[in-house]
Amino acid sequence: MRPWLMLASCQMFGGEITDAINPAIGIELFHNFTLLHDDIMDDAPLRRGEPTVYKKWNANVAILAGDTMFALANKFMLQTRPEVVPQILELFNQTAVEVCEGQQFDMDYEHRSQVSIADYMEMIRLKTAVLLAASLKIGAIIAEAEIHDCEFIYQFGIHIGLAFQLKDDLLDVYGQQEKFGKVTGGDIIAGKKTYLYLKALECAQDKAEYLRELYSSHPDDSSHKVTEVKKIFDELQIERLTRNEIEIFYQKALHDLMSIGLPSEAMETLIEYTDALMQREK
Amino acid sequence: MRPWLMLASCQMFGGEITDAINPAIGIELFHNFTLLHDDIMDDAPLRRGEPTVYKKWNANVAILAGDTMFALANKFMLQTRPEVVPQILELFNQTAVEVCEGQQFDMDYEHRSQVSIADYMEMIRLKTAVLLAASLKIGAIIAEAEIHDCEFIYQFGIHIGLAFQLKDDLLDVYGQQEKFGKVTGGDIIAGKKTYLYLKALECAQDKAEYLRELYSSHPDDSSHKVTEVKKIFDELQIERLTRNEIEIFYQKALHDLMSIGLPSEAMETLIEYTDALMQREK
Repeated sequence: MRPWLMLASCQMFGGEITDAINPAIGIELFHNFTLLHDDIMDDAPLRRGEPTVYKKWNANVAILAGDTMFALANKFMLQTRPEVVPQILELFNQTAVEVCEGQQFDMDYEHRSQVSIADYMEMIRLKTAVLLAASLKIGAIIAEAEIHDCEFIYQFGIHIGLAFQLKDDLLDVYGQQEKFGKVTGGDIIAGKKTYLYLKALECAQDKAEYLRELYSSHPDDSSHKVTEVKKIFDELQIERLTRNEIEIFYQKALHDLMSIGLPSEAMETLIEYTDALMQREK
Repeated sequence: MRPWLMLASCQMFGGEITDAINPAIGIELFHNFTLLHDDIMDDAPLRRGEPTVYKKWNANVAILAGDTMFALANKFMLQTRPEVVPQILELFNQTAVEVCEGQQFDMDYEHRSQVSIADYMEMIRLKTAVLLAASLKIGAIIAEAEIHDCEFIYQFGIHIGLAFQLKDDLLDVYGQQEKFGKVTGGDIIAGKKTYLYLKALECAQDKAEYLRELYSSHPDDSSHKVTEVKKIFDELQIERLTRNEIEIFYQKALHDLMSIGLPSEAMETLIEYTDALMQREK
């Protein structure tokens, strides 16, 4: 997704796609480095259906392999037109700092009883959205896009990033279950503080305390917990409220694109891709 | 040490020292990032007499703080003349890859029975020497030194780095014990595969098996172990052999300096500093 966005952005602004190939590899390496370290911190056994590096080898190997991947990501990021290297590397490493901040907030929130929706949105902005935004902006910088267009494509990335994460939260509860895919309700079982849960808490009034207790419980039979939480979500119309919020971010993203000084034909590929992301129901 | 070397090198080659200030901060941040992650991997309780980040908080905080410091190190490294940024960042991140390799070798060797002196020298080259060498070379690049002079100062850094690490190994056994400082023999107690131990194994002939067993033992009374190992080292003249080896690297380092196309007065500061490093006996 991130390399694709970088290449698409570079092409859209009339850049040479070959100038963006190595930075695109760099951004994917970086993303995978964060997954390696996240899997240690989250004590995760599986990633993409396979044992995590951390579980297959050990934490030390995962720490060191991750560090090496981050260094290699910077090396790939350098492989483009030298004039744009300082600007790209500044954005890339500033984004890396922000992604780390997002991960720290995510871990903090697990153990914090009071998390507001604003806190949550800021966390997913840092953990997820800024990397999509930076991917797009780096593509634009390589293509020598105007400064304000670089800013618009960055904001577009932030908005699709936020919409994308809320959609992820939504599909975990309301997605079409695939035959051999993820079980719906995984976030509910784990007691993960998602947008849906925080929105429900906000709307639940005198049922808030019950929801809080239920959601943080870890019963042997999790299917009953999932059913009960879903019932509360349904009563509070959480699905509709979340879909509204996603639509608002999607519209903001389209508005950012329309602010760019390019004919709309030039932006078709990016709009189609974004549409496909937004339409997914599993 | 690393920032000092960078600034001294920049000044020696006639560069503006202010152009090297931020990269010097970057190299120190990078070095401290590696210490944070190394302390997790080595399960180290103390660093510079204080609890490690890993012990004071936890592994997750140390992983993430380290990742952030690496990103910040790259950001500082960018704060110099833009023309030299691609070259500096390439060297810096290639060095980071090598330092990670060195750390992995170091961990591997702990559990490997056969480690040759050549293996060990390559490990300390990667883990320690390349970062000193890169610090010097980055200073030279910022000062727009000639390409071959950049190479000579890099090789100088490798040679003082190797000498420096062997001196560390030597002083751990034969250093002047300070009143409240490190206890000599710490490496022997821990069974650490140092140059002295590997050299002793190489020379020990029919005593090699006894030394190997003794060195890897962890008796309650470690002072007897230290005395016994030292006795073997003394019999095999390990101190003299190690001091010889350090002197060889020191001479190579001086030879590298003399190959640089600068009057020797320009190199006085660097030579004095190196002398002081080499003369230390504690």
